[in-house]
Amino acid sequence: MNTRSKTGNGARPSSRIAALRRDEILAGAQVTIRRLGLRRVGMRQIARAAGLSLGNLYYYFRNKEELVYFCQAQTLDRLLEVVLEARQGYGAHGQVAALIRGHLRVVLGGGDAMHLEFDNLPPALYRKLVRKRDEYEREVRALIAAGQKRGVLRDGDPKLIAFHVLGAINWAARWFRPDGEYTVDAVADHFAEQICGGIAK
Amino acid sequence: MNTRSKTGNGARPSSRIAALRRDEILAGAQVTIRRLGLRRVGMRQIARAAGLSLGNLYYYFRNKEELVYFCQAQTLDRLLEVVLEARQGYGAHGQVAALIRGHLRVVLGGGDAMHLEFDNLPPALYRKLVRKRDEYEREVRALIAAGQKRGVLRDGDPKLIAFHVLGAINWAARWFRPDGEYTVDAVADHFAEQICGGIAK
Repeated sequence: MNTRSKTGNGARPSSRIAALRRDEILAGAQVTIRRLGLRRVGMRQIARAAGLSLGNLYYYFRNKEELVYFCQAQTLDRLLEVVLEARQGYGAHGQVAALIRGHLRVVLGGGDAMHLEFDNLPPALYRKLVRKRDEYEREVRALIAAGQKRGVLRDGDPKLIAFHVLGAINWAARWFRPDGEYTVDAVADHFAEQICGGIAK
Repeated sequence: MNTRSKTGNGARPSSRIAALRRDEILAGAQVTIRRLGLRRVGMRQIARAAGLSLGNLYYYFRNKEELVYFCQAQTLDRLLEVVLEARQGYGAHGQVAALIRGHLRVVLGGGDAMHLEFDNLPPALYRKLVRKRDEYEREVRALIAAGQKRGVLRDGDPKLIAFHVLGAINWAARWFRPDGEYTVDAVADHFAEQICGGIAK
């Protein structure tokens, strides 16, 4: 699947090379944002970290808000790929586990320093992200409902179960440190097992 | 236990009546903050909702940041009571369930409109809240480790298990609506069962 073409909706540089370059800049920006904090980071620091002139950065992103929007949109596009892939490529029992592992790899491995923190964006960009997030949540609920139908998941409101799963794994973006005591895979395996199997004996 | 005396550290109005009045104002402020959003709410609106003059509100809280600090500190004090009570008052098996239920009742029932969103506070207030939050997390881990020792909880890193539990239930502050489709108790029961027993069959 081509994430770029979806994320790229409405951006100025329309060629494939420009889109790839934008993704590169976003990856670097995530590192800078994680280091300095979203509030304190400016376009100047992002440009410096990417080895670009400020003017050149503004060629790719109109302002910091648009850059934050693209970071978030890119992550949500990848998460949507994860859930669609989980529904196709795994046996019934492994679908939720595949979703949990894939979601954590995207959010923690991709260095998403501000996952779902988009309350401060301008309304138009905010609404576009909320739509993407809602689309993802709907797919997660559908995966859970399908698992219940096949008898591999316990009964219960799919919406509340999805909130449990997504809460546990989205929260990881807040405490996980790439240079900390856990690898992404260790966290992914642990969460997949504990969420599916429960924490009680 | 007396939450107020702990929350009240360093506040100006030192009498018990003043502390109770401050708690009342905080409860009203939570409603206003939830309605308008933390960023948009001002001391003027909080004063109006509490039926206070602006000057009178400033007698209780130096500024909006201090008011936000007291809201958060009060919630964390209550959560600390929940975990300490859960460790004493329940059989081994029910301790985690009691923690999950109590935590959700405090955060959702108390109308905490901005649970743990304190990144934007001035460093001194921020650090005090981080210390309180860390104290709470340590107690949650200790509860989990004790449950493992007694053989009622599955093995696994207590820190990662605590992150799973706290992530799932803290996330609820983001999606829960007091006038929505679920009651606080319905959410609390569902989460207690699903987190302990797992979502898989």
